[in-house]
Amino acid sequence: MTDWKTHLEQHKDAYLEELIEFLQIPSVSTLAAHREDVRRAAKWTANRLRRAGIEDVQIMETGGHPLVYAERIESADKPTILFYGHFDVQPAEPLELWTHPPFEPHVEDGRIYARAASDMKGNVLLPITACEAILQTTGALPVNVKFLIEGEEEIGSPSLGRFVAAHKDLLDCDLTVSADGGIGSKEDPKIGIGNRGLAGIEVRVQTANIDMHSGGGGFVPNALHGLISILNSLRDEEGRILVEGFYDDVEPVREQERALVSELAAGYERTAEAAGIRASFGEPEYSPTERALVRPTLELNGVWGGFQGDGIKTVIPHEAFAKITCRLVPNQDPAVIREQVKAHIRRVTPEYASVTFTDLPGEAFAYRLPSDDKSVDALQRVLLETTGKQAGFGMSGGTVPVMGLLQRALGVQTVTVGASGEDERAHAPNEFLRLENFYRLQEIYCLYLTELAAVL
Amino acid sequence: MTDWKTHLEQHKDAYLEELIEFLQIPSVSTLAAHREDVRRAAKWTANRLRRAGIEDVQIMETGGHPLVYAERIESADKPTILFYGHFDVQPAEPLELWTHPPFEPHVEDGRIYARAASDMKGNVLLPITACEAILQTTGALPVNVKFLIEGEEEIGSPSLGRFVAAHKDLLDCDLTVSADGGIGSKEDPKIGIGNRGLAGIEVRVQTANIDMHSGGGGFVPNALHGLISILNSLRDEEGRILVEGFYDDVEPVREQERALVSELAAGYERTAEAAGIRASFGEPEYSPTERALVRPTLELNGVWGGFQGDGIKTVIPHEAFAKITCRLVPNQDPAVIREQVKAHIRRVTPEYASVTFTDLPGEAFAYRLPSDDKSVDALQRVLLETTGKQAGFGMSGGTVPVMGLLQRALGVQTVTVGASGEDERAHAPNEFLRLENFYRLQEIYCLYLTELAAVL
Repeated sequence: MTDWKTHLEQHKDAYLEELIEFLQIPSVSTLAAHREDVRRAAKWTANRLRRAGIEDVQIMETGGHPLVYAERIESADKPTILFYGHFDVQPAEPLELWTHPPFEPHVEDGRIYARAASDMKGNVLLPITACEAILQTTGALPVNVKFLIEGEEEIGSPSLGRFVAAHKDLLDCDLTVSADGGIGSKEDPKIGIGNRGLAGIEVRVQTANIDMHSGGGGFVPNALHGLISILNSLRDEEGRILVEGFYDDVEPVREQERALVSELAAGYERTAEAAGIRASFGEPEYSPTERALVRPTLELNGVWGGFQGDGIKTVIPHEAFAKITCRLVPNQDPAVIREQVKAHIRRVTPEYASVTFTDLPGEAFAYRLPSDDKSVDALQRVLLETTGKQAGFGMSGGTVPVMGLLQRALGVQTVTVGASGEDERAHAPNEFLRLENFYRLQEIYCLYLTELAAVL
Repeated sequence: MTDWKTHLEQHKDAYLEELIEFLQIPSVSTLAAHREDVRRAAKWTANRLRRAGIEDVQIMETGGHPLVYAERIESADKPTILFYGHFDVQPAEPLELWTHPPFEPHVEDGRIYARAASDMKGNVLLPITACEAILQTTGALPVNVKFLIEGEEEIGSPSLGRFVAAHKDLLDCDLTVSADGGIGSKEDPKIGIGNRGLAGIEVRVQTANIDMHSGGGGFVPNALHGLISILNSLRDEEGRILVEGFYDDVEPVREQERALVSELAAGYERTAEAAGIRASFGEPEYSPTERALVRPTLELNGVWGGFQGDGIKTVIPHEAFAKITCRLVPNQDPAVIREQVKAHIRRVTPEYASVTFTDLPGEAFAYRLPSDDKSVDALQRVLLETTGKQAGFGMSGGTVPVMGLLQRALGVQTVTVGASGEDERAHAPNEFLRLENFYRLQEIYCLYLTELAAVL
């Protein structure tokens, strides 16, 4: 009987073929036209799990796109790991910027190019092929495993909270391992220990029931002026957020985090330079990187109203819109923040205007993985063994809704173990995955399951 | 020999046929695809002038769309009247809202429906048919006449200032009569004695060379936040304009104007109620109608940046835009105002942002026709004779660039004498003209020329 390492080695070509097949399904969750493709990706995932020896596999309805749940329980005295991932993908547009068609995977120079190569169909396969390799070479897994692979991550996981709340027993586990992300490179391994939450609303300001000629300006109120004064009131001149109660639940930044954040500053500065950013802006009490990682934000993602064409149209717009999202830090509740922002806006809305709100999807709590958690130690050991290096810690200013969600619903931590690199153009044209990491992470998954079996 | 009144009466059907033919030309000046149609309208106008007996007719190039100049000089001791009008039209879109095709004129219930019926192809014909009727029935005109009919009014008359400056001798006259507007109804005649000027810029705020993920918020500056803070700084909380120097040249509101403006308030209030406006907003020292007629404004006609689609896109926009126009009162110079607004914006632009400007077309000085001008008295007499009523005075918060322009370049006043009614959907679908006024104004033109010959 071969060992799992040899098994993985022998199946490299087969895994690549499978990945290509998986990537050919345009499972774009945000587009109604691809509804059946998302379901096809669910079926593909379910079939692949069954073939791996994870016998109990279900496609479960959520009200939105279906998700795949699977489990293999070895014995009650073994720890249980819940693997998280998603088989839905971002839209591929703008298509003309792709060198090869986004759903016709192209392998070149050790990379596979396709939509979702990096985010995250390659990663979905990691725990599946790892379990398969162990099962086929040893006949049993060192831990009980559960799989929660959803189809709505790219639209903000709108059904996941309800699903998890309704299936707490089913999902009960000792640790979640999310394949949605990366662990740095072989040269510079990194363990992610935190990300921010999210709350968003769209606001519509209305001042009349039709646009008016600007010759009436002075008499006719302008929805854009109303919106501008509302939006301007949300932050002070130095960028502090003025929404009442916004900072109430924010804990002071811990010294340990402050030190980690300052280590991460160089990466931000490189990105800023490449993007032609001339200065950062925000709470002066904090460094720019602290503001991006351990402090909450209130950002305008879109603002519009009136005439946007060439030249002039002397119109006074009767309505104007803004999309506002806040990135949140631990302890801030997205539902509370959303209501605080609405209350602020209602309070400052000028007499001549009315406002209405639409909640935006993607609501999420922030997440912190304690850096001394046993699961982190175990991953450190695996990374030291496979790279010869002590892994550093990483943080993200972005949001992975599932982590805060599972922590609150199931009381479990989530470790991210994936093959994605930060430069692999997730969400952008010519997305790719380094095949070296695709294969390397399969091995890391095998080693990690063994380590976890020992410490959990 | 018949008199001109009988002549007009006998040619009613012929004039309507001509108007229908003129309206069939889609001379949309803002659309490149209609460039030749605008020229066709110029030729049509030139031919019609020749047929009327205005022998010296030229189509003159301006760099943009051509204009039609024509004259008939009776004798050096007669006063000279310059008629102003335009043969270009607004776009007809949205086409689906028209009951009949916009360039296939439809006559029903004493109205003619078509794009430019009210604004202003019907009006272009008024001085032409009036001169023709007088010439064919008397053999001579009581005044010298010049015609300046342009093809760029609907795009802000961008070439007219240069043309007038280069042809001051040609255009030399004692009075301009603009056919671009109305004189109220038979029941409620009105003489327009003022309108506001215009200055506009588009501003672009840039904070990076690409949009960034909002997970970087706090580090990455947001062009929308920069734009919002800039725009908010332009006016105070009560609507006073904070641009340095903006009010410097504004003269105090005269008592006579204040009284006239208060008479016009009821019309504004009716419009506001129909439009669902709940409150007016602006300088508290002035009434809403004063703010709309005799005070300057700074309005946002369009603002945009970032994501405007459904749902959420957590992007930090790298650029954001605003279109700003100011309505001006007498003595304010649009070029000065434009530079003042730019200087203000440059001064308040945050360190993390850069701004660039595009001047918008349509720049114009405000205009006031002295209510005791001889030309006004003469028109009063004609309106009293034809309606049995003393005409009131009207003012507009809008802009007719040609008036301030001719006043400054030629030192002449402009009286507006046209058939348009305010409810005739100029610039909107199902535009129409009341034929009663089309015929009534031909007669008024004839009477007015005779009156002017006596007093100028």
